[in-house]
Amino acid sequence: MNRRDLLFAGAAAVVPHVITRASGQTRESLVEDVVTANRILAAQEIVDAFGHVSVRTAPGAGRYLISRSIAPAQVTASDILELDLDSKPAASEKRTSYRERFIHGEIYRVRPDVMSIVHCHAASLIPFSITRIPLRPVYHNSFFVGEGVPVFEIREAGGDTDMLVSTPELGKALAKTLGNKPAVLMRGHGAVIVGKSIIESVARSVYLEVNARVQAQAMAMGVRINYLNEGEVKKRTEDPDPYSRAWDLWKRQAAR
Amino acid sequence: MNRRDLLFAGAAAVVPHVITRASGQTRESLVEDVVTANRILAAQEIVDAFGHVSVRTAPGAGRYLISRSIAPAQVTASDILELDLDSKPAASEKRTSYRERFIHGEIYRVRPDVMSIVHCHAASLIPFSITRIPLRPVYHNSFFVGEGVPVFEIREAGGDTDMLVSTPELGKALAKTLGNKPAVLMRGHGAVIVGKSIIESVARSVYLEVNARVQAQAMAMGVRINYLNEGEVKKRTEDPDPYSRAWDLWKRQAAR
Amino acid sequence: MNRRDLLFAGAAAVVPHVITRASGQTRESLVEDVVTANRILAAQEIVDAFGHVSVRTAPGAGRYLISRSIAPAQVTASDILELDLDSKPAASEKRTSYRERFIHGEIYRVRPDVMSIVHCHAASLIPFSITRIPLRPVYHNSFFVGEGVPVFEIREAGGDTDMLVSTPELGKALAKTLGNKPAVLMRGHGAVIVGKSIIESVARSVYLEVNARVQAQAMAMGVRINYLNEGEVKKRTEDPDPYSRAWDLWKRQAAR
Amino acid sequence: MNRRDLLFAGAAAVVPHVITRASGQTRESLVEDVVTANRILAAQEIVDAFGHVSVRTAPGAGRYLISRSIAPAQVTASDILELDLDSKPAASEKRTSYRERFIHGEIYRVRPDVMSIVHCHAASLIPFSITRIPLRPVYHNSFFVGEGVPVFEIREAGGDTDMLVSTPELGKALAKTLGNKPAVLMRGHGAVIVGKSIIESVARSVYLEVNARVQAQAMAMGVRINYLNEGEVKKRTEDPDPYSRAWDLWKRQAAR
Repeated sequence: MNRRDLLFAGAAAVVPHVITRASGQTRESLVEDVVTANRILAAQEIVDAFGHVSVRTAPGAGRYLISRSIAPAQVTASDILELDLDSKPAASEKRTSYRERFIHGEIYRVRPDVMSIVHCHAASLIPFSITRIPLRPVYHNSFFVGEGVPVFEIREAGGDTDMLVSTPELGKALAKTLGNKPAVLMRGHGAVIVGKSIIESVARSVYLEVNARVQAQAMAMGVRINYLNEGEVKKRTEDPDPYSRAWDLWKRQAAR
Repeated sequence: MNRRDLLFAGAAAVVPHVITRASGQTRESLVEDVVTANRILAAQEIVDAFGHVSVRTAPGAGRYLISRSIAPAQVTASDILELDLDSKPAASEKRTSYRERFIHGEIYRVRPDVMSIVHCHAASLIPFSITRIPLRPVYHNSFFVGEGVPVFEIREAGGDTDMLVSTPELGKALAKTLGNKPAVLMRGHGAVIVGKSIIESVARSVYLEVNARVQAQAMAMGVRINYLNEGEVKKRTEDPDPYSRAWDLWKRQAAR
Repeated sequence: MNRRDLLFAGAAAVVPHVITRASGQTRESLVEDVVTANRILAAQEIVDAFGHVSVRTAPGAGRYLISRSIAPAQVTASDILELDLDSKPAASEKRTSYRERFIHGEIYRVRPDVMSIVHCHAASLIPFSITRIPLRPVYHNSFFVGEGVPVFEIREAGGDTDMLVSTPELGKALAKTLGNKPAVLMRGHGAVIVGKSIIESVARSVYLEVNARVQAQAMAMGVRINYLNEGEVKKRTEDPDPYSRAWDLWKRQAAR
Repeated sequence: MNRRDLLFAGAAAVVPHVITRASGQTRESLVEDVVTANRILAAQEIVDAFGHVSVRTAPGAGRYLISRSIAPAQVTASDILELDLDSKPAASEKRTSYRERFIHGEIYRVRPDVMSIVHCHAASLIPFSITRIPLRPVYHNSFFVGEGVPVFEIREAGGDTDMLVSTPELGKALAKTLGNKPAVLMRGHGAVIVGKSIIESVARSVYLEVNARVQAQAMAMGVRINYLNEGEVKKRTEDPDPYSRAWDLWKRQAAR
């Protein structure tokens, strides 16, 4: 029994082995992707003990896969639950997912283009969430930042809270701030990053963090910054598959 | 004999195997926690060759467990000593604990709510101890910073010293500056972080460091910062168990 | 079969085992150097999933060796292709190299002194490419920075693009901006570093990154900086072999 | 044959197995210390492929031990040479040490109190060597910085050079700038750190680097800094053995 077998032991018992027609991916393969994404995000230090990643079960589907409430670095296939857009599991499911699972359900509800969602707390993103300085695209692999990264002020949506998006209402408010953008910062908390695939949501998470570091350093040098312009962002967005090479490498590194 | 057995070899010889009634934890389990906390703090780079962590033997007890004077990364169960609130071991004990053990004894004496104490030297904390800029809460997992983190100026308590809290008097002065707060910085030296459990003191140590890095970065961006407000800090403080998931992950990582 | 054998398994099938007369290096040895350079650049964190390195097949030759389009950390001998100065492989070759391979072909075309080229995205270089602050030599092992590191503004050469040097025309424009210098930054993208040997291009890549970090830190301290002067740069340039010791160490570290 | 045996294989052939009377250390033990110091400095990232460390053979002796010219991470006992104060080996020795060995010989010549010397290039030190901002003590374990860390401007001593202290004259000039201090920065190059033992020179190297990082961060916060004062530096200097615990830990870590 090799490492991969160990990682995915138990998967068969949890999720039926049927083809998800629209995407052409089996359920088992989707579960494996969610496990891999968790491991990649931990290995790339985008998440620590907290944070989560989900994938929609199929284009247009009203259900998504996400781990039960454990640290991303520890997720295996048997930890993956299936929730509906109210972020509820099947009645027979006794385990619970993250308190902030509503982030996922409410975004999937209003963004049919979104197939995967990451929530993270990367430290370099926080300064851009607590100042009035917007993230802007400084690095070609972070081109999607040019589409805009708004900041979610939970205080406006819920008054004084424990900062967590732990209700459907807060999830809806967050989804509204996200709008049609690729990512949203959460004030004093972290970020949510979406994608049309799990490769895209994970890679955007990594390169959002790089953009924040580079932009902060450039701003510290105290001069006018030459950002990617609209035309450049648009041209780069036309690349149908900018991140597969990174996913393949990260997957191999995370498996160590 | 596996790794865990090796780590705790000798524990039985050192500490009696009785139940600590109030907490429901056996002495052996408490010792294991102190060893784990030492390993976590080293693996998370909160301590280097120096720094220490202790746990009170039971709620209300006048005794605490702490390692003899060695680097946290090297601590095993057989290194754990039991000291009283004067920071003295039993008469039969020939080994000595850290020169700064009075930090622990004097805080336990005046803070019955405190069950565990960490002393560390994390580099990112030092700038906040040598400037007049207070730590303030910028990150939701560092919410406790909002309760206040005072700075201990040893020069006021002891004149020109070797900077170490190596006497009961200096320990009392430090405890007085700490007051009822979750942590205190020590000018040009480091910090002391307390908790109602060892999980809390360790996790607060990790997230105090994150807060310092994030706050320094946000301040470097030269604009007004949107801190967590009082209501948010209060709400988050109501979470009875915000850090267990982190402890579980860190423990596994530190065991590698 | 040891690790080195595994790395280079298949090399014999791909590249003929003849002596490259001018350099006295066999083709097999050149291929091994390209593989090693890829592994070093990944281990030193100069490249991530993206970036590439090439070597000219012989002094004066119109051909160069470069990997097919995969992440540098994954390159083995069997991935190495041979391209001509139009960056085309032999007609029988079905695999393709990187989209930005024209960086290599067009620089080799106009710089007969150049035997090796690195393209990287190191984050600390980007701020110097998007501000008007030039890289200047602050560190003795980065002395070559004193020869000048221009910035390539792809917008001037190609209008709004996807930021990639993916055509011969853009490659020629980049080569023109590079001129006779040791390196060129690419705005919002990365850098290209050349050398008269693969050891030199790789070591310059590492020390260009160090220079950027040190210069940014010195500038943050807000005072006049004492750079290496022209005479010092010239004197240091006379060292015929400043980097072999580093190459030997990095090679060993990358093989782990 | 365990790892330690491997590291020190060949030592017996190189260095005679006699007691160095004054220090009570055998030659073999001194050689082992130099090897350990090299490995520690590499593991702690104080040196990279370059840098060196030496130890005087005995108090008052006119000879010192240092590696032949290889990267510190690769040094084994069989690489250690013995040089006199002119930095020359015995006539029968065919191997050569570092080009900058004169740093060591010329400092030992004028500083009878010095038993060990480190030369390093740590990046965080360079900004303090190229600006007019002096290193000052901000951190209790870096107290020795309070004795003063002058900057060596090689241009004053030798005009435009290749930046290397590669002659006895430059070594003498460096030793003069060092004076009776614990360390000296070298403009655009690195630092030399001395100690009354190899533990002291190595630990000072590590904590000099920490001080530079902390001081730069504190200065970036733009306010008046509360440095250790003279009395505190003096008091801390009275500790006869502040660093043995660190050496023991680092040695174990470097042996991995």
